[in-house]
Amino acid sequence: MSTAAPATGRAPARAVGVDIGGTKVLAALVDTAGAVLAEERVASPHDWDGIRDVVVDLVGSLRTAPEAAGGVAGVGVGAAGMVDLDGVIHYAPNVPGFRKVPVRAELEAALGCPVVVDNDANVAALAEARLGAARGLRHAIVITLGTGVGGGILVDGRVLRGGHGFAAEVGHFQIDPDGPLCACGEIGHWETLASGSALGELARRTVAAGRGRAILAAAGGDPGAVTGEHVSAAAHGGDPEALAVVDRYAYQVAIGLVGLANIFDPELIAIAGGLVNDGDLYLRPIRAHFLGHIEGAAYRPAPAIVPAALGERAGVIGAALAVIEAHARPENRPGVGG
Amino acid sequence: MSTAAPATGRAPARAVGVDIGGTKVLAALVDTAGAVLAEERVASPHDWDGIRDVVVDLVGSLRTAPEAAGGVAGVGVGAAGMVDLDGVIHYAPNVPGFRKVPVRAELEAALGCPVVVDNDANVAALAEARLGAARGLRHAIVITLGTGVGGGILVDGRVLRGGHGFAAEVGHFQIDPDGPLCACGEIGHWETLASGSALGELARRTVAAGRGRAILAAAGGDPGAVTGEHVSAAAHGGDPEALAVVDRYAYQVAIGLVGLANIFDPELIAIAGGLVNDGDLYLRPIRAHFLGHIEGAAYRPAPAIVPAALGERAGVIGAALAVIEAHARPENRPGVGG
Repeated sequence: MSTAAPATGRAPARAVGVDIGGTKVLAALVDTAGAVLAEERVASPHDWDGIRDVVVDLVGSLRTAPEAAGGVAGVGVGAAGMVDLDGVIHYAPNVPGFRKVPVRAELEAALGCPVVVDNDANVAALAEARLGAARGLRHAIVITLGTGVGGGILVDGRVLRGGHGFAAEVGHFQIDPDGPLCACGEIGHWETLASGSALGELARRTVAAGRGRAILAAAGGDPGAVTGEHVSAAAHGGDPEALAVVDRYAYQVAIGLVGLANIFDPELIAIAGGLVNDGDLYLRPIRAHFLGHIEGAAYRPAPAIVPAALGERAGVIGAALAVIEAHARPENRPGVGG
Repeated sequence: MSTAAPATGRAPARAVGVDIGGTKVLAALVDTAGAVLAEERVASPHDWDGIRDVVVDLVGSLRTAPEAAGGVAGVGVGAAGMVDLDGVIHYAPNVPGFRKVPVRAELEAALGCPVVVDNDANVAALAEARLGAARGLRHAIVITLGTGVGGGILVDGRVLRGGHGFAAEVGHFQIDPDGPLCACGEIGHWETLASGSALGELARRTVAAGRGRAILAAAGGDPGAVTGEHVSAAAHGGDPEALAVVDRYAYQVAIGLVGLANIFDPELIAIAGGLVNDGDLYLRPIRAHFLGHIEGAAYRPAPAIVPAALGERAGVIGAALAVIEAHARPENRPGVGG
């Protein structure tokens, strides 16, 4: 298909990246080195009309910032949900009633510049691949352990999109037929055992069973208020019951990473999310369990498991890089059918 | 690295493909359209020296066949095991003591022509992608349900190799922490529930529990002799207990395919193995369970699930295509570091 990208000569060295999340919309003016030159954020509206208006406002503001004087290559958007190769979002978990919205086309019409749209985890993986923890690598997996489990996968230097754009739903393979109910309606998906939310759930069950007093104390004595942060606090204090929760959770994370590594043979796995702020508290046991279960550990180089490097700005940086790369190489343009 | 491929002008339109299996070594002279012009097979020797001698003999015989009068582009080899990007086999399940053998280098030295080496499931997937069930597609998964579960994955038109060549070990992700022990030593891998062997095991457990009389009868009344073929025979006869075994097995296959489809978003899934000779007996319930569990079924095109087209010759054809493609485009050469 033809694209809406104007056939300009040299691409401006800047772009706007937008990260549409469940709680906030973050937008940033980003240069080709991934530096955030200006940034704006607002609370997420609850429907697509509201989100579109907010994105148009934020982009308008950033395009007139002094740092954008040379113009921008376009606007990259990362959004939670199923985004196809034409930038149509088929389903967005955070936006009720959001179905098959042509986000790229609507934003290009409203903004008058090239727009690319991709899944939020995919653009975050692109940022980590180009400028972060997986810089310079061609095969890597970037996993975000948050409310759910997000994943972006680098295959041969490019973000895996699949036949229709819906690839890398890595939280959604079953690892326990007797496991918890997933937000997607299925049973025992990896997300139900490896997300940050799952850590909190594991901690609350531990406390309800009469173990984990230090965890409960960290939560101020309210069993219903226990979250993963209280596990971390108690574990940092050396509490053995908290450390047991950390180890169990790390195993649950590792067993899914093992499956992904057996399937993708990555050079590196980067983990994003609040947990990696706790230094090696979680990463050390994740690595140990991973090495204990990866296929052919004795016969292969195992991928390093490292913290992601770009934090909460990975999304906006990656979204901006996506449109910059698309501008430079139209055949690689994510969010546009090829 | 440099390659041993001579810098010839036009590539001969033929190559030899070799499939090193646990029971036999199959070799064929194949043209660019995938036609098998001549074929030889011998029982598999039990060590690498024996296998190498057999391969050299078979290739020598095929290269002097009248159909090979114009010369061959090279020799492609598919082998069970972990094959790296330099054609070194790090581990081969069927060959005791086989560790880190530089198969490509040894065969190039012995044969004096370009050789590529890849995993047997990868070359079979290449054949299905170029000439078989996934012909013309860019994103597909080819699964072989046999003694184990083999997989080859087409991403953006190329066979997924990963960072070191070990990708697509799709039988080896855990789908049940209480499942059977896998040949690899792990618990509850998909292979333990979805292989052809797993169907036989399910049938023997059913018979041992006093169900499945028609299955037992098909096996001549010997509970220890029951295999998947007896399930098929009884199910074709309409026996409800045999059909229940078929349905349970189909579910176990489907639940792993769902995970792979959520991760890869393929356009098509092709299934190889004896089961697909039974028409839709297994494929129909596999499809039904698959559609019942794939992520976002209401919002996406689901991949077709079809029988693989090339049968037992997929390996030799794909191995030959691999060396032909490598000869045509050296940068794409599987089995050679890039």
